Amino acid sequence: MGIKITGIEYYLPKKIETLTDLKKANKKWDTKRIFHATGINKRFISAKNEDAIELAYKSAKKILNKFDKKKINFLIFVTQTSPYKLPSAACILQEKLSLSKNVMAFDINQGCSGFIYGLEVAKHLLEGNKSFNHGLIVLSDTYSKFISKKNSSCRPIFSDASSSVLIKKTSNNFIGNSEFGTDGRGAMSLKLSNKEIFMNGSKIALFTLSEIPNFIRNFCKKNNLNKNNFKLLALHQASKYVCEKIKDKLQIESKKIFFNYSAIGNTVSSSIPIILKECDRKKIIKKNDIIIACGFGVGLSWGITKIKWSNLI
Amino acid sequence: MGIKITGIEYYLPKKIETLTDLKKANKKWDTKRIFHATGINKRFISAKNEDAIELAYKSAKKILNKFDKKKINFLIFVTQTSPYKLPSAACILQEKLSLSKNVMAFDINQGCSGFIYGLEVAKHLLEGNKSFNHGLIVLSDTYSKFISKKNSSCRPIFSDASSSVLIKKTSNNFIGNSEFGTDGRGAMSLKLSNKEIFMNGSKIALFTLSEIPNFIRNFCKKNNLNKNNFKLLALHQASKYVCEKIKDKLQIESKKIFFNYSAIGNTVSSSIPIILKECDRKKIIKKNDIIIACGFGVGLSWGITKIKWSNLI
Repeated sequence: MGIKITGIEYYLPKKIETLTDLKKANKKWDTKRIFHATGINKRFISAKNEDAIELAYKSAKKILNKFDKKKINFLIFVTQTSPYKLPSAACILQEKLSLSKNVMAFDINQGCSGFIYGLEVAKHLLEGNKSFNHGLIVLSDTYSKFISKKNSSCRPIFSDASSSVLIKKTSNNFIGNSEFGTDGRGAMSLKLSNKEIFMNGSKIALFTLSEIPNFIRNFCKKNNLNKNNFKLLALHQASKYVCEKIKDKLQIESKKIFFNYSAIGNTVSSSIPIILKECDRKKIIKKNDIIIACGFGVGLSWGITKIKWSNLI
Repeated sequence: MGIKITGIEYYLPKKIETLTDLKKANKKWDTKRIFHATGINKRFISAKNEDAIELAYKSAKKILNKFDKKKINFLIFVTQTSPYKLPSAACILQEKLSLSKNVMAFDINQGCSGFIYGLEVAKHLLEGNKSFNHGLIVLSDTYSKFISKKNSSCRPIFSDASSSVLIKKTSNNFIGNSEFGTDGRGAMSLKLSNKEIFMNGSKIALFTLSEIPNFIRNFCKKNNLNKNNFKLLALHQASKYVCEKIKDKLQIESKKIFFNYSAIGNTVSSSIPIILKECDRKKIIKKNDIIIACGFGVGLSWGITKIKWSNLI
């Protein structure tokens, strides 16, 4: 018994914001230095009337254009920026997508580790609940609505985005084992109460570089993964500095890792689904390839899993 | 393979607010009429510095005074009123409770159906993930912080509360099957963006009475449950009107249903755990008794499950 990923779609808002745009609003910013650290020049910014639920709708709809919505048994909405404290965004999306009234729909609040968390929950719901055969994980955030143009630690990094991942119960297992970590001592290093996101970027980077390379190394050891038997490390796209450092520390070949932060920024919980979709489209990953996916960040929270690739709808 | 509930604790804030208190602030309110419909006289109100995480800590700590915190493999925090959009409240609570850095910790956003949703997720995580043996579900909300004293539809009903439920992997199964429902067409009937909860009480009540009695009836049929083989229907404590109507429609004997709305109000996702704890303490439910638990409300979202009772720590 197991599950597999059978569909991934994503949506990026139309509006693009570059470092040049930010320089206009912040004459004193050293955008060369910022670019050197982040590697990010353009990011996607949701329109005023485009909230996390609307973005989610746009990627989920792409899946449901190819797959019968009546077959969806549960909807997991991973978000930290729903316009509502209540009800859960998943309930609103259930109606927008005209999903069955029998779906189990709920939100999971997680950020950069959110895809690994959502996938683990979805996997065990599908495997364990006899009446479930298909689940939809939707990941959507609009961090930009909570980051002013003057916020130099956050604005040059985060993109708004949504992604939707269709998963299916199967006789063979394509996902797992997964491992997780949480360290609330770093909770205040990236936080949002109401209006403006605060990030202590160097604290988050320090944590990441002290924790994540070992976390990945140990996971590979336990799962007998080495450079000969995995095809891709799909890493959360935190920034150039963090991604390159992890790559160096693990001494991973360039062809085994795929970076897209420069083109789309840090899309929080959508970063890994977007990498998987892009690598599938570019035939960097093919059926039966082994992928390691690792998300980490806000929380602090991190997670890792192994994915055996299968064809997407 | 299965799971069982091995511990429940709850916490209610110290401050009590009565209808008499509300009458002082709202001279024109017909509190007799309100009491006739809600059956609720006193409710619990969190202190200014007591947020949903602090309430959660107080009930979780009661569990961890009796159980080794190092054994907890995951923490699910069910809440709609965390003071933070990010990080997830579960990460902050992980640190406050000094749980292991290896825990999987995340928030689920659900309200009155939240216990059934959290329990289903926890059940399948425990059953499916080989390295998980114990999980903690913490449910905590402070609706009162988002309801002014002038809000006549909400203030007389909702109580702040938290509850913590310890679950354990076992060879026999004590929980399930569960069923779920979602109808986002009613999403705007009970909502909170930022400051003040809005509730269209009659719409919520109408939905509940048209959906929930049939939902419970069908669940009982499918699971061969009748008045001779279940001991207790643990129903979300929406209000007197809703609870009594459901009881009447289902023609359930008084001894098979336990109401505590009059003493503690509507505690959202904690209502069912509190009933289970009270009924255990009063020996209304004992080892091996069968309980039906049904939560419903904000979302609109509902869920039902069957619990075989076991001794609590």
